[in-house]
Amino acid sequence: MTTRRVLANAIRALAMDAVEKANSGHPGMPMGMADIAEVLWNDFLQFNPGNPKWPNRDRFVLSNGHGSMLQYAALHLSGFDLPMSELERFRQWHSKTPGHPEAADTVGVETTTGPLGQGIANSVGFALAEKLLAQHFNRPGHDIVDHRTYVFAGDGCLMEGVSHEAASLAGTWKLGKLVLVYDDNKISIDGEVEGWFTDDTAKRFDAYGWNVIGPIDGHDAEAVKQAFVQANAQSEKPTIIICKTIIGFGAPNKEGKEEAHGSALGKSEVAAARDMLDWRYPPFVIPDEIYAAWDKKKIGAEREKKWNDAFAKYQAEYPELAAEFVRRTASELPKDWASKSQAFVEKMQADGPDVASRKASQMTLDAFGPLLPELIGGSADLAPSNLTMWKGSKTITGPDGNYVHYGVREFGMSAIANGVALYGGLLPYDGTFLVFSDYARNAVRMSCLIPAHVIHVYTHDSIGLGEDGPTHQPIEHISSLRLIPNNRLWRPCDAAESAVSWKVAVERKGKPSCLIFSRQTLKHQQRTAQQLADIQRGAYVLSDPADTKFKAIIIATGSEVELAMEAARTLAQQNIPVRVVSMPCTEEFDAQPAEYREAILPGWCRARVAVEAANADFWGKYVGLDGAVIGMTTFGASAPAPILFEKFGFTVAHVVDTVKKVIG
Amino acid sequence: MTTRRVLANAIRALAMDAVEKANSGHPGMPMGMADIAEVLWNDFLQFNPGNPKWPNRDRFVLSNGHGSMLQYAALHLSGFDLPMSELERFRQWHSKTPGHPEAADTVGVETTTGPLGQGIANSVGFALAEKLLAQHFNRPGHDIVDHRTYVFAGDGCLMEGVSHEAASLAGTWKLGKLVLVYDDNKISIDGEVEGWFTDDTAKRFDAYGWNVIGPIDGHDAEAVKQAFVQANAQSEKPTIIICKTIIGFGAPNKEGKEEAHGSALGKSEVAAARDMLDWRYPPFVIPDEIYAAWDKKKIGAEREKKWNDAFAKYQAEYPELAAEFVRRTASELPKDWASKSQAFVEKMQADGPDVASRKASQMTLDAFGPLLPELIGGSADLAPSNLTMWKGSKTITGPDGNYVHYGVREFGMSAIANGVALYGGLLPYDGTFLVFSDYARNAVRMSCLIPAHVIHVYTHDSIGLGEDGPTHQPIEHISSLRLIPNNRLWRPCDAAESAVSWKVAVERKGKPSCLIFSRQTLKHQQRTAQQLADIQRGAYVLSDPADTKFKAIIIATGSEVELAMEAARTLAQQNIPVRVVSMPCTEEFDAQPAEYREAILPGWCRARVAVEAANADFWGKYVGLDGAVIGMTTFGASAPAPILFEKFGFTVAHVVDTVKKVIG
Repeated sequence: MTTRRVLANAIRALAMDAVEKANSGHPGMPMGMADIAEVLWNDFLQFNPGNPKWPNRDRFVLSNGHGSMLQYAALHLSGFDLPMSELERFRQWHSKTPGHPEAADTVGVETTTGPLGQGIANSVGFALAEKLLAQHFNRPGHDIVDHRTYVFAGDGCLMEGVSHEAASLAGTWKLGKLVLVYDDNKISIDGEVEGWFTDDTAKRFDAYGWNVIGPIDGHDAEAVKQAFVQANAQSEKPTIIICKTIIGFGAPNKEGKEEAHGSALGKSEVAAARDMLDWRYPPFVIPDEIYAAWDKKKIGAEREKKWNDAFAKYQAEYPELAAEFVRRTASELPKDWASKSQAFVEKMQADGPDVASRKASQMTLDAFGPLLPELIGGSADLAPSNLTMWKGSKTITGPDGNYVHYGVREFGMSAIANGVALYGGLLPYDGTFLVFSDYARNAVRMSCLIPAHVIHVYTHDSIGLGEDGPTHQPIEHISSLRLIPNNRLWRPCDAAESAVSWKVAVERKGKPSCLIFSRQTLKHQQRTAQQLADIQRGAYVLSDPADTKFKAIIIATGSEVELAMEAARTLAQQNIPVRVVSMPCTEEFDAQPAEYREAILPGWCRARVAVEAANADFWGKYVGLDGAVIGMTTFGASAPAPILFEKFGFTVAHVVDTVKKVIG
Repeated sequence: MTTRRVLANAIRALAMDAVEKANSGHPGMPMGMADIAEVLWNDFLQFNPGNPKWPNRDRFVLSNGHGSMLQYAALHLSGFDLPMSELERFRQWHSKTPGHPEAADTVGVETTTGPLGQGIANSVGFALAEKLLAQHFNRPGHDIVDHRTYVFAGDGCLMEGVSHEAASLAGTWKLGKLVLVYDDNKISIDGEVEGWFTDDTAKRFDAYGWNVIGPIDGHDAEAVKQAFVQANAQSEKPTIIICKTIIGFGAPNKEGKEEAHGSALGKSEVAAARDMLDWRYPPFVIPDEIYAAWDKKKIGAEREKKWNDAFAKYQAEYPELAAEFVRRTASELPKDWASKSQAFVEKMQADGPDVASRKASQMTLDAFGPLLPELIGGSADLAPSNLTMWKGSKTITGPDGNYVHYGVREFGMSAIANGVALYGGLLPYDGTFLVFSDYARNAVRMSCLIPAHVIHVYTHDSIGLGEDGPTHQPIEHISSLRLIPNNRLWRPCDAAESAVSWKVAVERKGKPSCLIFSRQTLKHQQRTAQQLADIQRGAYVLSDPADTKFKAIIIATGSEVELAMEAARTLAQQNIPVRVVSMPCTEEFDAQPAEYREAILPGWCRARVAVEAANADFWGKYVGLDGAVIGMTTFGASAPAPILFEKFGFTVAHVVDTVKKVIG
């Protein structure tokens, strides 16, 4: 008889077998949460295996991503394009079943998880996006955006600080269609959690304004079902369902213990578990009646068809809105984007304002914001400093909002923004001081790894922020963000480069950027049309000697470009011709064809000086063993910015001397 | 009449005046919390201005560090060596009054704060250290370690995720002598917090097992006093006192508003505030009777004398314990440390075990642990993976513990470890997977900036961790940690280098290190006594051709050293003589005299190949424009480690080919 327990055991068996075959992985969580997952997937979750990207599907996030086999098993059983052969290749090179769920690799995986707690924040992002798009696109009788977001999370997720930040915001925003299922199994890697995790989690989430259900028995399918019914009966508050479970449920000697968590159970224990669960099938074999009970291909197609019919009616009644919905969910930019954004870049070059690049960023937002209704901004309680609000910014707690006051929660902010970006239809940017990108560090990494189209705005980019001192002055951050694969970091030197950096970041479909802006005023630089066009190549010649060959190259970024230009002028007066290269984005420059790179930094010229008010080590890559770097080798200090630039050697005289030295 | 309010107004006036003179800073918090600070400093806080390092002083932490002028004013008024001339130089170059409190700059400042929330975690570290040292050193009738830790925190601190991690642990550990004063002023930089911070904080801290007092009126000195009395009447639970305050209290037009938070009030508002507060003295002038009421020099000296007398009795009764207390609070290593630790290093070289470096790290802990009772370990729920527990490890929830199960709380862990290190008498190490150093990133930065003697142990150091996949495989982390000023990052290649890295990290008094260890087995390398001695210089020649000059240099770290050695042997067979440099610590190498560096990496040899299974960019610094780097340019993947090393080019053949190419 195909009872619910048998359906759940299919997950357990696949998890045990895949981990066993790989001799690597985490059987404990899938076996512990199998009953819950079975109820959710078979009775509640709305999706279409035939079209994993159906816009109005429920979103499911596995925040305790080490339990990836639970998700793979459920995707496989319910009919997604994830054949058994892929489950048999769990954790192998180029399989669709990597150790932790990866959105880029596996259909039906909404986000990449594993780094604990962030899945909760991603799910808050999904639920926020759903709410905002519903507010914007739905019309009376036309709820084209209307679904729930479910997230599974374990003890580890709830211990992580990011769970606090994300849950607090979800409560404040009243994300009533978000349901968090807490796998309360009392075990983490070090053992029984009572020695290090004694929170009253129900009380804690009540304090955040959540609807708290449970504790319930996570192995009682009827209780689980009732909990979901209760959660979904309201949409005023996010819900946490606290489920008491037994990690490794069904493994007679290891269940309830940390031994079940993170390694293969072993041949004899798997056999014993098969006995205990009364699961009489060989590894990777699922009987037809179990497949039949799990299969959601038909019902999924019907669900989507129903929605498609509803959308067709919506389209007939609101053709413009519907077209906009289609455009935005396809992540296509508006038709007039290319010309209008380019016109603004040219205007910034022509007008040539001397402004802080954070101000230039805001001017750009004022220009681009009206073109991009998908833009949703925010900052971690630094709106007046980051200048992330533009004229059209409206807080999301009001109607048709496009600006998120994240509070002082950098990590939650960026992990939520990742969720918003993955949802589709919205293009999030967030903001904080560059130094506090540290707090969000792994979420920024996840933007790059997933990847997600998030624009991280970081202002107060160097010792140039002045008096706040070394706790607030980034030194290592610019280069350390450059080191993350897939990232693009822009540090513009003036208003024109700032506008270009925004333009390129908006156009970088599906991938993130970090935009680094100054607190202090930066001088406008003259450019030809070609120079202006070349900014987006990441580096270009900003200035060459008029009638003679250069003897040295000064490479600079951001606020140091004007210093480089002044030094070049001084050197010219001393008959030492130098080239100045502005390099706002090293990664973009590295991606250019070799000929372009050679044209900008010709191999014959070894007299190279890089100038950047940040850690110097990174620049060895461009200046080599014969060049020099003027950078920071210590932390900064608290004093007015001009004093700091002088004391730390960012002076025309020092650049000039250094160039002379490298020329030799 | 010198009422309490007048005493508090001295703080307000100094804060207003200093910010006004600097035209930079944060008057709002000091004016809002002045009444609370006055009560705490004048009625409760136990310290001696004449000896800010008196071991049994109460610890005070300003987690909302932007209110630094409150701390500077209190230190000045109560008699610390912080003259008015320094208050007048607030936020100026090399003043003792930087923008945010810095432990290295100002007497009486226990830790460096500003990055929000971390001060709470530091204070948990202080309270934990007090508890552990009291358990270890106190004897019946001899409470030589017995004091409280107070921390001020604002809305921002409580929004940050790290507050969740630290408060949860403080509750679990029952740190009953910790008192957190929450400045509940309902204002943050973006404005009234109700739009982004609606937590029921009392309920939240109750959920953590804290003693919750308030809300009380933070401007009612009597209510504040009673709250402290109530907090200190028990020592079973940490206490939070929720104080309703008005930001910028006393500034008639700006109080209660975000305008009071982060910039000078302006001449007219300062004048109006003087009127409102009835403060009739010029800027930076404090009348004698107010100084007299604040002065703690005499009573402080008496307090310390009383303790010194008690300590003398303790010394008489327990001379060995007392000597140990003196040694440890002075951060001196045991007498036999140098010889015994060196003997172990030599043993590791002689024994030559082929082990994972995480295992070598544990073997080192087994050897060093018994020598160092001050060692207090821990990991963020990865003890069995990090191998941070050694034979003598006992959890701190039992008697005489030396191991902390931090749970899955990397940021809280490292920020707590910073507090433990600053306390004195304990040498903390913490642990997690290298990739999750991201979560703790700013606390690691703070270890370097404060600086604090914390040893951060990071295992699973590359794609070599295998199947867990890209979410768990560090790529950018090694180099991005190297970029933090003051840091020392060690990535040892075998058991001997692992032992040396621990030795050097233990001996790096007052400063942090990051020790990077592999999951997989690393091969032992042969070394002469000189080579063994040179490990601590950060880089040394591990292998040179026997009878001929080398044509190229391979530089490698960690697991790639054995690859480099194999490649060198293959090249030797092809009559291409190469040098192999093992470079476990680039920063230490950079700090060597030029002659040493030239001897290892002679300028004439431009055929250089660096090999490190991590982001390649950093190595340009050593290989220059004519060399090459074999590193990672993308994220990793989920597969068994040997497959990954092969697919990503970490093969003998690839190193050999690359060397040939750079020789040309």
